Order: sequence, then C-alpha cells, then structure tokens
Amino acid sequence: MSDAGNTTSGPLPRACSFAIRILVRFGDCDPAGIVFYPRLLEMFNNLVEDWCSEGLNFSFDDIVIKRGWGLPTVHLEADFLAPCRLGETLTAKLFVRDVGTSSIKADIALCGPDGRDRVRGNIVLVLMDRQSGRAMALPGALRKSISSFVVSG
Amino acid sequence: MSDAGNTTSGPLPRACSFAIRILVRFGDCDPAGIVFYPRLLEMFNNLVEDWCSEGLNFSFDDIVIKRGWGLPTVHLEADFLAPCRLGETLTAKLFVRDVGTSSIKADIALCGPDGRDRVRGNIVLVLMDRQSGRAMALPGALRKSISSFVVSG
Amino acid sequence: MSDAGNTTSGPLPRACSFAIRILVRFGDCDPAGIVFYPRLLEMFNNLVEDWCSEGLNFSFDDIVIKRGWGLPTVHLEADFLAPCRLGETLTAKLFVRDVGTSSIKADIALCGPDGRDRVRGNIVLVLMDRQSGRAMALPGALRKSISSFVVSG
Amino acid sequence: MSDAGNTTSGPLPRACSFAIRILVRFGDCDPAGIVFYPRLLEMFNNLVEDWCSEGLNFSFDDIVIKRGWGLPTVHLEADFLAPCRLGETLTAKLFVRDVGTSSIKADIALCGPDGRDRVRGNIVLVLMDRQSGRAMALPGALRKSISSFVVSG
Repeated sequence: MSDAGNTTSGPLPRACSFAIRILVRFGDCDPAGIVFYPRLLEMFNNLVEDWCSEGLNFSFDDIVIKRGWGLPTVHLEADFLAPCRLGETLTAKLFVRDVGTSSIKADIALCGPDGRDRVRGNIVLVLMDRQSGRAMALPGALRKSISSFVVSG
Repeated sequence: MSDAGNTTSGPLPRACSFAIRILVRFGDCDPAGIVFYPRLLEMFNNLVEDWCSEGLNFSFDDIVIKRGWGLPTVHLEADFLAPCRLGETLTAKLFVRDVGTSSIKADIALCGPDGRDRVRGNIVLVLMDRQSGRAMALPGALRKSISSFVVSG
Repeated sequence: MSDAGNTTSGPLPRACSFAIRILVRFGDCDPAGIVFYPRLLEMFNNLVEDWCSEGLNFSFDDIVIKRGWGLPTVHLEADFLAPCRLGETLTAKLFVRDVGTSSIKADIALCGPDGRDRVRGNIVLVLMDRQSGRAMALPGALRKSISSFVVSG
Repeated sequence: MSDAGNTTSGPLPRACSFAIRILVRFGDCDPAGIVFYPRLLEMFNNLVEDWCSEGLNFSFDDIVIKRGWGLPTVHLEADFLAPCRLGETLTAKLFVRDVGTSSIKADIALCGPDGRDRVRGNIVLVLMDRQSGRAMALPGALRKSISSFVVSG
C-alpha cells in the first residue's frame, strides 16, 4: 500500500529541527501550473502539525480538541524564491530558533528535489487559552521538550 | 525524516485495486471538528492521482501539463457514513470496476483506523482532449494497463 | 466598495428555492485552467450555508457553534457536465425537494453565464446532535420554514 | 437573488486603494472555530485578484490564461492580531504603496465588523513571463494605471 502518512524514513537534514516530505498534488496547483501560494502556507502549517505530533508528542488534537487551547501562528514572513511544480516532492524543514514564555519562533524552508530552497520563511506561534482568548505560559515539560529542538541560525 | 510522500509500505487490502493512507490534518477539519466534506472529495482525487502516477505510470503532470489532456471526474456519488476526525489515519481504497472507450468507472472507500467504512462512493473519469474539449479514446497500452486493475464488485 | 458578500440583488430564477452568484476565482482553478472539482462541492456547501443563514435565518454559526448541532451532508451525487472557467460568474441554484423528520433532500445546479447547467447534483442533509452523534428531529418551526422552500421537480 | 459576486456597493474606506467585503464561511474555519490562516492568505489573493480585474481592468484570466504571464506574490508578511470567526463579514483593504519596473508593493488589512484590524500584512507582486520564468517590465499603460492607486502610508 502506498503511504501518504508519516513514516520515519531517514536521518534529518543537517542543522534542521524536524522535516517532512510533501508531494505537490494537482489540487495544490493553480492555472499557472505551480503551487497556489496559500497552499504553500498550508504546507508550513502541516509541518508544524507533524512536529507537534511526532516531535513533541503534543498533537493538534490534544491541543485544540482535548485541552481547548490553541497554537495559532501570530506572525508570518515568506519569500517565494522559485515556483513549486505538480508532481515534485518537496522537503519541508523546520528550524526552531527560540522559545519564550508562551511563544515559539521558527524558520521554515521548502526545498525542491534539487535541494535548493523554493520558499524561505519564518513564523511565530503562541500558545493560547481559547476560553479567555489570552496567551498562556508553555507548561514546563513542553517548554523543555521544545528547547531540545532549538538549532542555531 | 518524516515522510508525507508516497512510499510503498505493505500489501494491498484484499480485493482492492490500489490504496493509500491519508492523515486527517487540521486544515481538513471544520468547526465541528470533523473533515469538511469537500476535503473528503479532494482525498478521492488524491487517491486517483496516486493510482495514475504509481499504478499506471501515467501521472497527472504527464496527462495535463505535458500532453494537454485531462482526466476529469464527470460523475460522482458519495455516502458519508461516519465522521472522520482530526489526527486519524484513513485508508483510501480504489476499486476499478470497468473501462470503456474513454471512461473509467471506480468505487472508492475511505476507512477509519477501525477498518470500517466512513465514506463510500463511486466515480466516472473520462479522458479528454483539452484542445477540442471532447472525450478521446484511451490509448491501447493504457487501456490494457487499467484493465489489469479491474476488480469485481 | 466591491462586495464579495451576500446582497439580495434581484428575483429568484424560476422554480428555484434559493440562489447565489459565485465568481470563479484563481484559487478555485487547477492546472487545466478549470475549477478543481472539490471546489465545486465547496460551492454546493456555500449555497446551503447561505440558504440556512438568509433563507431560514438559522446560520451555521447558530447550528454548529452556538447549539452544538451539525447539518452534515450524508449523501451527494453530482454530474459535471461542462467545465467552469476562471473569471466566470456562476449561478448556484438550490431546489429543496423534501423534508423528513431530520433530513432535507435538495437538488443543486451550477449554471454558467450562458444559463446552461455546468454541474447538476443532489444532496441529503441531516440534522445531528453532535454530543450523541445521532440524527435529531428538525424543530417544528424550522421544519415549517424549510417546507415553505420546497419546489416540485 | 443573493450575490456572492462583486458589485460596487459604496464608497472606499478612507486612504485605501481598493476594498472588498468577505464573508467568513464554514469552509474557511478550523476546529478552533476561527479562520484557518492559509485561508486568510487566500483572502489576500482574492483581494489582489479583484483589484486587478475591477481596478486595473486586467484580470488574472487575461494575465495567466490569455497572455501566458504571471503575477506571483514573491514576498509576504502578516501579523494575525485577532481571530476571524464564522459568519463575520470582513473588509479587506488594499493599500498600493509603490510601483517598480516589474514589481508592486502593497499593504493589506483585514478588518472585522467592529472596524478593527484582525490581520495586517504586506506583499510584493512581480509580473513574470512564464515562458522564460523571468520578471518582465510592467507595460507603460498598466504601470500608469497602477500608479493612480498608490496611497501614502
């Protein structure tokens, strides 16, 4: 069976906190034949989602559904350096840069099959209590776990 | 590295032409916490896309970009039997039922981790020449290849 | 100011329960330059959403967020008769056909600027109690309101 | 008939180059009940698309399909200040800031029904020749037209 899931399949790219491979699908592409850019940002979110689930053992289902928290992206920057095309397999790399009281800063790169960056960006995530709508401090164990993923720039 | 790509990872489910595993992601889900149904149909399309690419060696990139053809879904039926939830890994199964001059009929099932069907549907695909906007006969070798995937109902 | 919202702007097409106009956007279209079909089903859902909100005064926000209910599509059929292209304004028409204890049956048509059907389909919606995961009877006033939209086939 | 299209319906917000209203739909929202952020970026793109079509009379269909050009977003920044909720009507405002040889710089704001900014961002667009994959100079008349939309910061 073909697997569109999340099997560990090799060593991390150097200096990167976490990485996944993403196939560029028909539904990701626009009439220009390249990935529609909001879909590239959805790939950013998928990368964070997989890191939370597999790296931190703290899935979006735990965060949002079970605990009533949220981990929204509050800031985003992205440079779209070269188009991503239908059928290409991209490597999405997460570089965790800093952990604050309730926030996480990270860089993201989407690389083409040739190893060159197609998209480079950075994000800030904040842990929220959805009931109050306010930022909340990262629990100690989680903060420690996140810290273990920090790589220097 | 975590792999959101398409690695062959085991035997086919019985009586099924082709299957992939699909992780239900945050971006697939609606405010009711279950998969937004147009995303379930996008999963149908992803299944067909992977079958074309991996099963038939005739990718959507070949079909649409390189040859200027299309393989649109012209008919669709679906029964949504039970909700699919965030974080679940679904098995999407394709059952090719019939090959016509230019059309392919297939059943599709999306199964939950418990092995029970969540969605059951059927589709009709037609090979089109996009220049003329008309159906075109499936090339002989392709037709033969598709026929090898037909399973009885 | 340009309005991508929902202003009443004219009489209903004949024999139709409710209708909206939908602009085919860049993000709706695939590398073949036509609407990616899961997006056509999202248009089906948008039509139902607007009918609930404007026709029934019973918005998805009321149903899902405030009351904890759901109104999922449990059955869907669609025939994709002709492609919908970037920049076209479609007319999406809802024809409510039947109201049961907890279900609503309706036909849907998406028409092109030339007035010809591009997509014809039908759906079954069911009112659910999300806590129990079971169908629930449509409240009397709502059932009466829905009945007033029924048109014969 | 309800209109999800693009009818001019009032004066521009002050100091803004172009604006549209956008209804937050069920399919835009995630299990946390707020807009999934890649959908907010799709709203950015829809705003640019409507400005090109209605403001510049130079639609994405003209640019991408008829001429074989592209107008990709090459840089993006966004601050997500407050969540956008199901059923809200947002005002998306475009502030064109600068026109270069082949590029356009603009700020974007998505405002809630209370008039306060929910998202603030900026983008850089570049006119591309898709055949060569290179930036191309904005045609003189188009450059002049764009310049008429520039507002100071």
